[in-house]
Amino acid sequence: MRPGRLAYAVLVSRWAPDARERLETAALDLFAENGYEETTVAQIADRAGLNRATFFRHFADKREVLFGGEDVLAGLFAGAIRAASPDATLTECLQAALAAAGTAMTPQQRARAAQRMAVAAANTDVQERGLLKHARIARSINAALRERGTDELTARLAAEAGMLAFTIAVERWMKAGNGQPFPLHAAAALSDLQVRAAELSGISLLRHG
Amino acid sequence: MRPGRLAYAVLVSRWAPDARERLETAALDLFAENGYEETTVAQIADRAGLNRATFFRHFADKREVLFGGEDVLAGLFAGAIRAASPDATLTECLQAALAAAGTAMTPQQRARAAQRMAVAAANTDVQERGLLKHARIARSINAALRERGTDELTARLAAEAGMLAFTIAVERWMKAGNGQPFPLHAAAALSDLQVRAAELSGISLLRHG
Repeated sequence: MRPGRLAYAVLVSRWAPDARERLETAALDLFAENGYEETTVAQIADRAGLNRATFFRHFADKREVLFGGEDVLAGLFAGAIRAASPDATLTECLQAALAAAGTAMTPQQRARAAQRMAVAAANTDVQERGLLKHARIARSINAALRERGTDELTARLAAEAGMLAFTIAVERWMKAGNGQPFPLHAAAALSDLQVRAAELSGISLLRHG
Repeated sequence: MRPGRLAYAVLVSRWAPDARERLETAALDLFAENGYEETTVAQIADRAGLNRATFFRHFADKREVLFGGEDVLAGLFAGAIRAASPDATLTECLQAALAAAGTAMTPQQRARAAQRMAVAAANTDVQERGLLKHARIARSINAALRERGTDELTARLAAEAGMLAFTIAVERWMKAGNGQPFPLHAAAALSDLQVRAAELSGISLLRHG
Protein backbone atom coordinates (compact mmCIF):
# COMPACT_ATOMS: atom_id res chain seq x y z
CA MET A 1 0.00 0.00 0.00
CA ARG A 2 1.39 3.36 -1.03
CA PRO A 3 0.50 6.19 1.37
CA GLY A 4 -0.95 9.39 -0.07
CA ARG A 5 1.17 12.52 -0.23
CA LEU A 6 0.04 14.01 3.07
CA ALA A 7 0.02 10.72 4.96
CA TYR A 8 3.48 10.00 3.60
CA ALA A 9 4.85 13.35 4.70
CA VAL A 10 3.45 12.81 8.19
CA LEU A 11 4.79 9.25 8.29
CA VAL A 12 8.21 10.28 7.09
CA SER A 13 8.42 13.32 9.34
CA ARG A 14 8.24 11.06 12.43
CA TRP A 15 11.68 9.64 11.84
CA ALA A 16 13.14 11.94 9.18
CA PRO A 17 12.49 15.43 10.41
CA ASP A 18 14.63 17.38 7.96
CA ALA A 19 13.80 18.23 4.39
CA ARG A 20 17.03 16.80 3.03
CA GLU A 21 16.40 13.33 4.38
CA ARG A 22 12.73 13.40 3.36
CA LEU A 23 13.77 14.23 -0.20
CA GLU A 24 16.31 11.38 -0.23
CA THR A 25 13.76 8.89 1.04
CA ALA A 26 11.08 10.06 -1.41
CA ALA A 27 13.54 9.89 -4.33
CA LEU A 28 14.70 6.35 -3.56
CA ASP A 29 11.12 5.17 -3.17
CA LEU A 30 10.05 6.76 -6.46
CA PHE A 31 13.10 5.38 -8.30
CA ALA A 32 12.19 1.90 -7.03
CA GLU A 33 8.52 2.30 -7.96
CA ASN A 34 8.73 4.06 -11.33
CA GLY A 35 12.35 3.93 -12.42
CA TYR A 36 15.10 6.53 -12.15
CA GLU A 37 14.76 7.97 -15.65
CA GLU A 38 10.98 8.35 -15.36
CA THR A 39 11.06 10.17 -12.01
CA THR A 40 11.12 13.98 -12.05
CA VAL A 41 12.38 16.42 -9.43
CA ALA A 42 8.82 17.77 -9.13
CA GLN A 43 7.54 14.29 -8.26
CA ILE A 44 10.26 13.82 -5.64
CA ALA A 45 9.48 17.16 -4.01
CA ASP A 46 5.76 16.41 -4.14
CA ARG A 47 6.18 12.99 -2.52
CA ALA A 48 8.24 14.57 0.25
CA GLY A 49 5.57 17.21 0.83
CA LEU A 50 7.90 19.98 -0.35
CA ASN A 51 8.30 22.08 -3.49
CA ARG A 52 10.88 22.12 -6.30
CA ALA A 53 12.60 25.21 -4.95
CA THR A 54 13.26 23.39 -1.68
CA PHE A 55 14.67 20.43 -3.62
CA PHE A 56 17.13 22.67 -5.43
CA ARG A 57 18.17 24.34 -2.20
CA HIS A 58 19.44 20.93 -1.07
CA PHE A 59 20.52 19.23 -4.31
CA ALA A 60 21.94 20.52 -7.60
CA ASP A 61 20.12 17.90 -9.68
CA LYS A 62 18.27 14.58 -9.58
CA ARG A 63 21.45 12.50 -9.45
CA GLU A 64 22.73 14.42 -6.44
CA VAL A 65 19.86 13.24 -4.23
CA LEU A 66 21.38 9.74 -4.41
CA PHE A 67 24.68 10.85 -2.94
CA GLY A 68 23.69 13.05 -0.01
CA GLY A 69 25.64 10.79 2.37
CA GLU A 70 28.93 11.21 0.55
CA ASP A 71 29.60 14.70 1.89
CA VAL A 72 28.96 13.38 5.39
CA LEU A 73 31.45 10.54 4.79
CA ALA A 74 34.11 12.89 3.46
CA GLY A 75 33.75 14.95 6.64
CA LEU A 76 33.91 11.89 8.92
CA PHE A 77 37.04 10.51 7.23
CA ALA A 78 38.89 13.81 7.21
CA GLY A 79 37.77 14.74 10.72
CA ALA A 80 39.08 11.48 12.18
CA ILE A 81 42.46 11.91 10.48
CA ARG A 82 42.73 15.48 11.75
CA ALA A 83 41.82 14.33 15.27
CA ALA A 84 44.40 11.49 15.29
CA SER A 85 47.38 11.84 17.59
CA PRO A 86 50.36 13.62 15.96
CA ASP A 87 52.48 10.47 16.18
CA ALA A 88 49.81 8.16 14.75
CA THR A 89 51.09 5.95 11.94
CA LEU A 90 49.58 6.04 8.46
CA THR A 91 47.78 2.80 9.28
CA GLU A 92 46.38 4.25 12.50
CA CYS A 93 45.11 7.30 10.59
CA LEU A 94 43.26 5.10 8.07
CA GLN A 95 41.90 2.89 10.85
CA ALA A 96 40.55 5.96 12.64
CA ALA A 97 38.98 7.27 9.42
CA LEU A 98 37.22 3.98 8.66
CA ALA A 99 36.04 3.59 12.25
CA ALA A 100 34.57 7.11 12.16
CA ALA A 101 32.67 6.26 8.98
CA GLY A 102 30.96 3.54 11.00
CA THR A 103 28.70 6.08 12.67
CA ALA A 104 27.09 6.80 9.28
CA MET A 105 26.68 3.13 8.37
CA THR A 106 23.36 2.40 10.03
CA PRO A 107 20.92 -0.39 9.06
CA GLN A 108 18.77 2.32 7.42
CA GLN A 109 21.81 3.42 5.42
CA ARG A 110 22.41 -0.14 4.33
CA ALA A 111 18.90 -0.37 2.90
CA ARG A 112 19.47 2.90 1.07
CA ALA A 113 22.81 1.75 -0.29
CA ALA A 114 21.11 -1.31 -1.78
CA GLN A 115 18.47 0.87 -3.48
CA ARG A 116 21.14 3.23 -4.77
CA MET A 117 23.26 0.40 -6.17
CA ALA A 118 20.24 -0.91 -8.06
CA VAL A 119 19.72 2.52 -9.64
CA ALA A 120 23.43 2.90 -10.44
CA ALA A 121 23.63 -0.54 -12.06
CA ALA A 122 21.08 0.59 -14.66
CA ASN A 123 22.27 4.19 -15.21
CA THR A 124 25.72 5.15 -16.42
CA ASP A 125 25.26 8.78 -15.46
CA VAL A 126 24.50 7.75 -11.88
CA GLN A 127 27.67 5.61 -11.86
CA GLU A 128 29.59 8.62 -13.11
CA ARG A 129 28.28 10.83 -10.32
CA GLY A 130 29.16 8.11 -7.83
CA LEU A 131 32.72 8.05 -9.12
CA LEU A 132 32.95 11.82 -8.82
CA LYS A 133 31.82 11.60 -5.19
CA HIS A 134 34.28 8.77 -4.59
CA ALA A 135 37.09 10.90 -6.03
CA ARG A 136 36.09 13.81 -3.81
CA ILE A 137 36.13 11.68 -0.67
CA ALA A 138 39.57 10.39 -1.66
CA ARG A 139 40.73 13.99 -2.07
CA SER A 140 39.44 14.87 1.40
CA ILE A 141 41.42 11.96 2.91
CA ASN A 142 44.44 13.04 0.89
CA ALA A 143 44.12 16.66 2.09
CA ALA A 144 43.77 15.65 5.74
CA LEU A 145 46.91 13.48 5.49
CA ARG A 146 48.83 16.27 3.75
CA GLU A 147 47.96 18.61 6.65
CA ARG A 148 49.77 16.15 8.95
CA GLY A 149 52.89 16.42 6.81
CA THR A 150 52.43 13.17 4.89
CA ASP A 151 54.30 13.38 1.59
CA GLU A 152 52.27 13.80 -1.59
CA LEU A 153 52.58 10.31 -3.06
CA THR A 154 52.01 8.54 0.24
CA ALA A 155 48.87 10.61 0.82
CA ARG A 156 47.55 9.81 -2.66
CA LEU A 157 48.21 6.09 -2.37
CA ALA A 158 46.80 5.98 1.17
CA ALA A 159 43.65 7.81 0.04
CA GLU A 160 43.10 5.28 -2.77
CA ALA A 161 43.82 2.35 -0.49
CA GLY A 162 41.55 3.78 2.21
CA MET A 163 38.71 4.18 -0.28
CA LEU A 164 39.27 0.65 -1.58
CA ALA A 165 39.14 -0.66 2.02
CA PHE A 166 35.92 1.29 2.51
CA THR A 167 34.39 -0.08 -0.72
CA ILE A 168 35.31 -3.66 0.17
CA ALA A 169 33.95 -3.19 3.70
CA VAL A 170 30.66 -1.87 2.31
CA GLU A 171 30.38 -4.86 -0.03
CA ARG A 172 30.98 -7.32 2.82
CA TRP A 173 28.69 -5.43 5.20
CA MET A 174 25.88 -5.50 2.64
CA LYS A 175 26.37 -9.17 1.87
CA ALA A 176 26.60 -10.25 5.52
CA GLY A 177 23.65 -10.48 7.86
CA ASN A 178 23.02 -7.93 10.58
CA GLY A 179 25.46 -9.61 12.92
CA GLN A 180 28.65 -7.67 12.32
CA PRO A 181 28.71 -3.89 12.60
CA PHE A 182 30.44 -1.90 9.86
CA PRO A 183 33.63 -0.96 11.78
CA LEU A 184 34.60 -4.65 12.11
CA HIS A 185 34.28 -5.13 8.35
CA ALA A 186 36.27 -1.95 7.79
CA ALA A 187 39.12 -2.99 10.09
CA ALA A 188 39.30 -6.43 8.44
CA ALA A 189 39.27 -4.98 4.90
CA LEU A 190 42.08 -2.54 5.73
CA SER A 191 44.14 -5.29 7.30
CA ASP A 192 43.55 -7.55 4.25
CA LEU A 193 44.72 -4.76 1.93
CA GLN A 194 47.84 -4.15 4.00
CA VAL A 195 48.97 -7.72 3.33
CA ARG A 196 48.51 -7.02 -0.40
CA ALA A 197 50.34 -3.70 -0.12
CA ALA A 198 53.37 -5.62 1.12
CA GLU A 199 53.21 -7.82 -1.97
CA LEU A 200 52.81 -4.75 -4.18
CA SER A 201 55.87 -3.17 -2.57
CA GLY A 202 57.89 -6.17 -3.67
CA ILE A 203 58.88 -6.95 -0.08
CA SER A 204 56.80 -10.07 0.19
CA LEU A 205 58.47 -13.43 -0.17
CA LEU A 206 55.37 -14.80 -1.88
CA ARG A 207 55.71 -15.24 -5.61
CA HIS A 208 52.87 -14.09 -7.79
CA GLY A 209 51.72 -15.77 -10.97
CA MET B 1 44.56 31.53 -39.13
CA ARG B 2 41.70 29.05 -39.12
CA PRO B 3 41.54 26.92 -42.28
CA GLY B 4 38.16 26.53 -44.02
CA ARG B 5 36.27 23.29 -43.83
CA LEU B 6 37.63 21.69 -46.98
CA ALA B 7 41.19 22.87 -46.48
CA TYR B 8 41.05 21.61 -42.92
CA ALA B 9 39.85 18.16 -43.95
CA VAL B 10 42.64 17.90 -46.51
CA LEU B 11 45.20 19.15 -44.02
CA VAL B 12 44.04 16.76 -41.32
CA SER B 13 43.75 13.80 -43.67
CA ARG B 14 47.49 13.93 -44.37
CA TRP B 15 48.39 12.74 -40.90
CA ALA B 16 45.08 11.52 -39.50
CA PRO B 17 43.57 9.32 -42.17
CA ASP B 18 40.75 7.76 -40.21
CA ALA B 19 37.42 9.33 -39.36
CA ARG B 20 37.75 8.66 -35.65
CA GLU B 21 40.95 10.62 -35.29
CA ARG B 22 39.69 13.43 -37.53
CA LEU B 23 36.64 13.79 -35.29
CA GLU B 24 38.80 13.88 -32.16
CA THR B 25 41.07 16.54 -33.61
CA ALA B 26 38.16 18.64 -34.86
CA ALA B 27 36.40 18.39 -31.48
CA LEU B 28 39.45 19.47 -29.47
CA ASP B 29 40.07 22.39 -31.80
CA LEU B 30 36.45 23.54 -31.60
CA PHE B 31 36.38 23.18 -27.81
CA ALA B 32 39.50 25.35 -27.60
CA GLU B 33 38.09 27.94 -30.03
CA ASN B 34 34.46 28.20 -28.92
CA GLY B 35 34.18 26.35 -25.62
CA TYR B 36 33.02 22.84 -24.87
CA GLU B 37 29.42 23.69 -23.97
CA GLU B 38 28.93 25.82 -27.07
CA THR B 39 30.21 23.20 -29.52
CA THR B 40 27.67 20.84 -31.11
CA VAL B 41 28.18 17.38 -32.57
CA ALA B 42 27.06 18.77 -35.95
CA GLN B 43 29.84 21.36 -35.83
CA ILE B 44 32.43 18.72 -34.95
CA ALA B 45 31.35 16.49 -37.82
CA ASP B 46 31.29 19.45 -40.19
CA ARG B 47 34.79 20.57 -39.21
CA ALA B 48 36.06 17.03 -39.79
CA GLY B 49 34.41 16.96 -43.21
CA LEU B 50 32.01 14.21 -42.09
CA ASN B 51 28.35 14.02 -41.11
CA ARG B 52 26.56 13.52 -37.77
CA ALA B 53 25.74 9.90 -38.53
CA THR B 54 29.44 9.16 -38.90
CA PHE B 55 30.13 10.88 -35.59
CA PHE B 56 27.62 8.67 -33.82
CA ARG B 57 29.05 5.53 -35.42
CA HIS B 58 32.28 6.31 -33.58
CA PHE B 59 31.14 8.05 -30.39
CA ALA B 60 28.03 7.75 -28.22
CA ASP B 61 27.96 11.46 -27.36
CA LYS B 62 30.01 14.67 -27.33
CA ARG B 63 31.86 13.80 -24.14
CA GLU B 64 32.99 10.47 -25.55
CA VAL B 65 35.05 12.12 -28.30
CA LEU B 66 37.41 13.34 -25.56
CA PHE B 67 38.17 9.83 -24.35
CA GLY B 68 38.79 7.85 -27.51
CA GLY B 69 42.26 6.93 -26.31
CA GLU B 70 41.06 5.30 -23.10
CA ASP B 71 39.86 2.12 -24.81
CA VAL B 72 43.24 1.85 -26.50
CA LEU B 73 44.95 2.21 -23.11
CA ALA B 74 42.77 -0.42 -21.46
CA GLY B 75 43.73 -2.82 -24.25
CA LEU B 76 47.45 -2.05 -23.97
CA PHE B 77 47.49 -2.52 -20.19
CA ALA B 78 45.53 -5.77 -20.23
CA GLY B 79 47.39 -7.13 -23.26
CA ALA B 80 50.78 -6.62 -21.64
CA ILE B 81 49.68 -8.36 -18.44
CA ARG B 82 48.29 -11.30 -20.44
CA ALA B 83 51.54 -11.51 -22.40
CA ALA B 84 53.75 -11.48 -19.28
CA SER B 85 55.61 -14.66 -18.39
CA PRO B 86 53.61 -16.99 -16.12
CA ASP B 87 56.11 -16.56 -13.29
CA ALA B 88 56.25 -12.76 -13.55
CA THR B 89 55.75 -11.01 -10.20
CA LEU B 90 52.94 -8.57 -9.59
CA THR B 91 55.45 -5.74 -9.94
CA GLU B 92 56.70 -7.11 -13.25
CA CYS B 93 53.11 -7.30 -14.54
CA LEU B 94 52.47 -3.65 -13.67
CA GLN B 95 55.81 -2.60 -15.13
CA ALA B 96 54.94 -4.37 -18.39
CA ALA B 97 51.50 -2.75 -18.47
CA LEU B 98 52.89 0.76 -17.96
CA ALA B 99 55.66 0.21 -20.49
CA ALA B 100 53.08 -0.94 -23.07
CA ALA B 101 51.05 2.21 -22.49
CA GLY B 102 54.11 4.14 -23.61
CA THR B 103 53.40 3.33 -27.25
CA ALA B 104 50.22 5.43 -27.01
CA MET B 105 51.91 8.35 -25.27
CA THR B 106 53.21 10.27 -28.27
CA PRO B 107 54.01 14.01 -28.36
CA GLN B 108 50.73 14.47 -30.29
CA GLN B 109 48.91 12.66 -27.49
CA ARG B 110 50.53 14.95 -24.95
CA ALA B 111 49.18 18.01 -26.72
CA ARG B 112 45.72 16.43 -26.78
CA ALA B 113 45.90 15.52 -23.11
CA ALA B 114 46.60 19.16 -22.27
CA GLN B 115 43.57 20.30 -24.31
CA ARG B 116 41.40 17.65 -22.71
CA MET B 117 42.49 18.61 -19.19
CA ALA B 118 41.57 22.22 -19.88
CA VAL B 119 38.07 21.14 -20.96
CA ALA B 120 37.70 18.81 -17.96
CA ALA B 121 38.78 21.49 -15.50
CA ALA B 122 35.80 23.60 -16.56
CA ASN B 123 33.16 20.85 -16.96
CA THR B 124 32.07 18.51 -14.19
CA ASP B 125 30.33 16.16 -16.61
CA VAL B 126 33.57 15.74 -18.54
CA GLN B 127 35.39 14.96 -15.28
CA GLU B 128 32.72 12.38 -14.51
CA ARG B 129 33.17 10.69 -17.88
CA GLY B 130 36.92 10.68 -17.33
CA LEU B 131 36.45 8.94 -13.99
CA LEU B 132 34.22 6.34 -15.62
CA LYS B 133 36.92 5.64 -18.21
CA HIS B 134 39.53 5.50 -15.47
CA ALA B 135 37.41 2.96 -13.55
CA ARG B 136 37.02 0.87 -16.70
CA ILE B 137 40.76 0.78 -17.35
CA ALA B 138 41.29 -0.25 -13.72
CA ARG B 139 38.77 -3.05 -14.22
CA SER B 140 40.60 -4.26 -17.32
CA ILE B 141 43.90 -4.42 -15.37
CA ASN B 142 42.07 -6.20 -12.56
CA ALA B 143 40.53 -8.74 -14.98
CA ALA B 144 43.87 -9.47 -16.68
CA LEU B 145 45.49 -10.08 -13.27
CA ARG B 146 42.60 -12.31 -12.17
CA GLU B 147 43.11 -14.45 -15.30
CA ARG B 148 46.65 -15.11 -14.08
CA GLY B 149 45.30 -16.41 -10.78
CA THR B 150 45.96 -13.26 -8.73
CA ASP B 151 43.60 -13.19 -5.74
CA GLU B 152 40.72 -10.75 -5.82
CA LEU B 153 41.94 -8.15 -3.32
CA THR B 154 45.49 -8.13 -4.66
CA ALA B 155 44.17 -7.58 -8.18
CA ARG B 156 41.94 -4.72 -7.04
CA LEU B 157 44.69 -2.98 -5.08
CA ALA B 158 47.21 -3.53 -7.89
CA ALA B 159 44.77 -2.10 -10.44
CA GLU B 160 44.28 1.04 -8.33
CA ALA B 161 48.00 1.39 -7.68
CA GLY B 162 48.77 0.83 -11.37
CA MET B 163 46.31 3.53 -12.37
CA LEU B 164 47.75 5.89 -9.77
CA ALA B 165 51.25 5.23 -11.12
CA PHE B 166 49.93 5.94 -14.63
CA THR B 167 48.24 9.19 -13.50
CA ILE B 168 51.38 10.39 -11.72
CA ALA B 169 53.51 9.46 -14.74
CA VAL B 170 51.20 11.43 -17.05
CA GLU B 171 51.40 14.47 -14.75
CA ARG B 172 55.21 14.34 -14.71
CA TRP B 173 55.44 13.66 -18.45
CA MET B 174 53.22 16.67 -19.18
CA LYS B 175 55.14 18.93 -16.84
CA ALA B 176 58.59 17.86 -18.05
CA GLY B 177 60.12 18.92 -21.32
CA ASN B 178 60.38 16.58 -24.29
CA GLY B 179 63.53 15.00 -22.94
CA GLN B 180 62.21 11.96 -21.13
CA PRO B 181 59.91 9.49 -22.87
CA PHE B 182 56.81 8.31 -21.05
CA PRO B 183 58.02 4.81 -20.07
CA LEU B 184 60.80 6.29 -17.92
CA HIS B 185 58.28 8.44 -16.03
CA ALA B 186 56.03 5.41 -15.65
CA ALA B 187 58.77 3.18 -14.25
CA ALA B 188 59.84 5.90 -11.79
CA ALA B 189 56.26 6.55 -10.64
CA LEU B 190 55.62 2.85 -10.02
CA SER B 191 58.84 2.50 -8.10
CA ASP B 192 58.00 5.58 -6.01
CA LEU B 193 54.59 4.12 -5.16
CA GLN B 194 56.12 0.80 -4.15
CA VAL B 195 58.11 2.53 -1.43
CA ARG B 196 54.83 4.03 -0.17
CA ALA B 197 53.07 0.66 -0.41
CA ALA B 198 55.64 -0.69 2.05
CA GLU B 199 54.77 2.11 4.46
CA LEU B 200 51.06 1.44 3.96
CA SER B 201 51.60 -2.22 4.72
CA GLY B 202 53.01 -1.23 8.08
CA ILE B 203 56.30 -2.99 7.34
CA SER B 204 58.33 0.18 7.01
CA LEU B 205 60.50 1.29 9.90
CA LEU B 206 59.74 4.94 9.07
CA ARG B 207 57.28 6.58 11.39
CA HIS B 208 54.58 8.70 9.90
CA GLY B 209 53.17 11.88 11.39
